[in-house]
Amino acid sequence: VSDLERPGSTPRTRIRRLPHHAVVDSDALRDILDRGLVAHVGFVGEDGAPYVIPVAYARAGNRMLFHGSTASRTFRALGAGTPACATVTIIEGIVLARSAFESSMNYGSVMVLGRCEVVEGEAKLAALERISEHVAPGRWAELRPPKPQELKATRVLALPLDECSVKVNLDGPDDPPDDLDQPVWAGTVPLRRSWGRPLAAPDLRFDLPPPTYIAGWRADRV
Amino acid sequence: VSDLERPGSTPRTRIRRLPHHAVVDSDALRDILDRGLVAHVGFVGEDGAPYVIPVAYARAGNRMLFHGSTASRTFRALGAGTPACATVTIIEGIVLARSAFESSMNYGSVMVLGRCEVVEGEAKLAALERISEHVAPGRWAELRPPKPQELKATRVLALPLDECSVKVNLDGPDDPPDDLDQPVWAGTVPLRRSWGRPLAAPDLRFDLPPPTYIAGWRADRV
Repeated sequence: VSDLERPGSTPRTRIRRLPHHAVVDSDALRDILDRGLVAHVGFVGEDGAPYVIPVAYARAGNRMLFHGSTASRTFRALGAGTPACATVTIIEGIVLARSAFESSMNYGSVMVLGRCEVVEGEAKLAALERISEHVAPGRWAELRPPKPQELKATRVLALPLDECSVKVNLDGPDDPPDDLDQPVWAGTVPLRRSWGRPLAAPDLRFDLPPPTYIAGWRADRV
Repeated sequence: VSDLERPGSTPRTRIRRLPHHAVVDSDALRDILDRGLVAHVGFVGEDGAPYVIPVAYARAGNRMLFHGSTASRTFRALGAGTPACATVTIIEGIVLARSAFESSMNYGSVMVLGRCEVVEGEAKLAALERISEHVAPGRWAELRPPKPQELKATRVLALPLDECSVKVNLDGPDDPPDDLDQPVWAGTVPLRRSWGRPLAAPDLRFDLPPPTYIAGWRADRV
């Protein structure tokens, strides 16, 4: 996949702490964004305070796409171009070092800074399909098309991946030499994900099995 | 557990959209905060833009506790009392409705607004134990105590749960009547978590098995 250009680094996304965890790697950025289900989107409210909201998203090329209600104050503010920060984090496991101080988590995290633009017209429908396919791959093709009033009630936003940082820590414990004789086990406990058995809606009218495409969903979504 | 008082609701945490998803329920708040591993913490930077950072935390009674480096700009700003928003979200599954418009996710999310206070002295050590036990229950007791220079390099912050909102959606599809004859399966695909097999650090010096307390960790952490 070559649809993601090298993400931009600027002084405000340069990672100051633990710079060895900084990654200038489109593959890592793409992997994290393609596995996450929600981004935590921050913006500054009218009262000057920060707000952080979980929002479904998809990555499409060099942009993140979001959808929400046109009645949502958050989506109105974001659609008006207020500065935004969208962060997606995947916890991969717990790192048990020989000290509490060195103990940590394995994780990957992407932080994107910028301003959203409203997506309209044909691009809006394509964006909704992209978000649907990100969350539930295979579903879109078997659903009826969105109705005009549904499209009208939905706002779609795009946030360019121009200014972002990627942090990845998958190294396990990194104890200083004088802790290596501590008489405790050290290592990593991985956090796994999997899809459970699909549960039919109580009001399902047809004797249909769950869609077969669910079996193809990657298990490492979060 | 009766250590959590009823969380406060204020005009700015009142849920305006989809108010039927709002929960004024300390049990739901406690469950979400006790299962999460990181909070996404938002604050307004010196440039006036929002930043959202994943931070390990624990709940202790009516507060969230965070720890980070004293050298971290984020922790300096938060410790100085800049307004903060800490959000913890747990995705429980994908909701496949009969239309893309009604499709969604099952989830629980807690948003806490307020200002952090720096935790010092004996309370600081207790807070570090609490965070360690939140992330890796059972670990603290077998580790050496933190060294003075480790305590000095660590900042501990507390955010009161005075002003927060809880949103929970576990209902599955809720299609309008005229969609119920759509010839598609509808229901929920649960997202499960589990702990993988512990991986020993390559520099482990003793022939120790992984700690037995790992087997007691609840599997629904995220």
